[in-house]
Amino acid sequence: MTGLPTELNGAASGVFITLEGGDGSGKSTQAALLAGWLGEQGRTVMRTREPGGTEVGVEIREIVLHHRGHIAPRAEALLYAADRAHHIETAVRPALARGEVVIQDRYIDSSVAYQGAGRVLGGAEVRQLSLWATEGLLPDLTVLLDLDESVARGRLEAAQKRFDRLEAEKGDFHARVREAFLALAAAEPERFLVVDAALPVEELAAVIRARVATLLG
Amino acid sequence: MTGLPTELNGAASGVFITLEGGDGSGKSTQAALLAGWLGEQGRTVMRTREPGGTEVGVEIREIVLHHRGHIAPRAEALLYAADRAHHIETAVRPALARGEVVIQDRYIDSSVAYQGAGRVLGGAEVRQLSLWATEGLLPDLTVLLDLDESVARGRLEAAQKRFDRLEAEKGDFHARVREAFLALAAAEPERFLVVDAALPVEELAAVIRARVATLLG
Repeated sequence: MTGLPTELNGAASGVFITLEGGDGSGKSTQAALLAGWLGEQGRTVMRTREPGGTEVGVEIREIVLHHRGHIAPRAEALLYAADRAHHIETAVRPALARGEVVIQDRYIDSSVAYQGAGRVLGGAEVRQLSLWATEGLLPDLTVLLDLDESVARGRLEAAQKRFDRLEAEKGDFHARVREAFLALAAAEPERFLVVDAALPVEELAAVIRARVATLLG
Repeated sequence: MTGLPTELNGAASGVFITLEGGDGSGKSTQAALLAGWLGEQGRTVMRTREPGGTEVGVEIREIVLHHRGHIAPRAEALLYAADRAHHIETAVRPALARGEVVIQDRYIDSSVAYQGAGRVLGGAEVRQLSLWATEGLLPDLTVLLDLDESVARGRLEAAQKRFDRLEAEKGDFHARVREAFLALAAAEPERFLVVDAALPVEELAAVIRARVATLLG
């Protein structure tokens, strides 16, 4: 949307950290380790996710993931944006205003990577929609857990996880999602920390902690 | 959103007519009379409405109208836009492609008038969102049933209708909505037919029929 303010980060005193990457890349594990470490440092942490991080979001998620039959692609994008608008206004911004560290599983970059890679809508349009929904809130740091598609798939299969609609897409789709994430990181190197998700869990956690420590000063 | 196509009307061979105006202005009555007359002329007519004109739309309407508690204003606007995107793609455009006449109760102008008048979001932003949602589908004709607020209120009270959230707003709110509708009509005189909704029902129907007859050639 034209002429809108898209940078209101200055209004928040907390720190907004998002984790991005494909399924099986270890986002939840790293979010938990980071939250635990921050807690030990005396920081108040809010862990959250999209979609479905609020009560309204759960209702929206129910439509997006469980409606039987076709949903128009633009309607789907607007539903995700609605979930995000409500989540950011009612949960994330208040936590940031209280000075907390928000650690969030998936945000704008996931929408751009998945919907862009799905080629239904352009990544630029999806990004604009999210920025309008959130009044331009961008993370202070986005950790991209980059992982080769075959390794990710092996992990998910080893966990005997039942694949959801997106996970069940072919390898080519996930390769395109990975490329899209890497392109987003390359375009905003100051916001992104790209890490090799094939590293041992503790080693990876240490890399992320080091960057977060710098961010927190 | 910048750089999007916003006029794809040429793709449709049918005729898209919307009815706008406050509650109690007689939209449903006039839609029924117009549909009946068009049927007599041998035209295939689809009558529909927003929000809630599809199965997905009914689920979205349920959230917007019946969720207990606050919904972020941008989330609400995005939910209405999602309903519209799905409705236009899956119901209205297919009917227009089949050459039908679509008569729809409320569309973009209602969003702009009500959300603009509510002053939560700007009318221009709400309009842009709707145009993105619908890939720029504008009606061939919009009939604005213009009615003095006190007359409208009297009609609703006479019908002993239970007021919903919007209807229950004070008179000042409805006066602003009416002004907003009239401003929209003044800005697009070729698309709008403004009629005095205080006229007798049959007289009003004749005025509308005359304009539709011209439109259909």
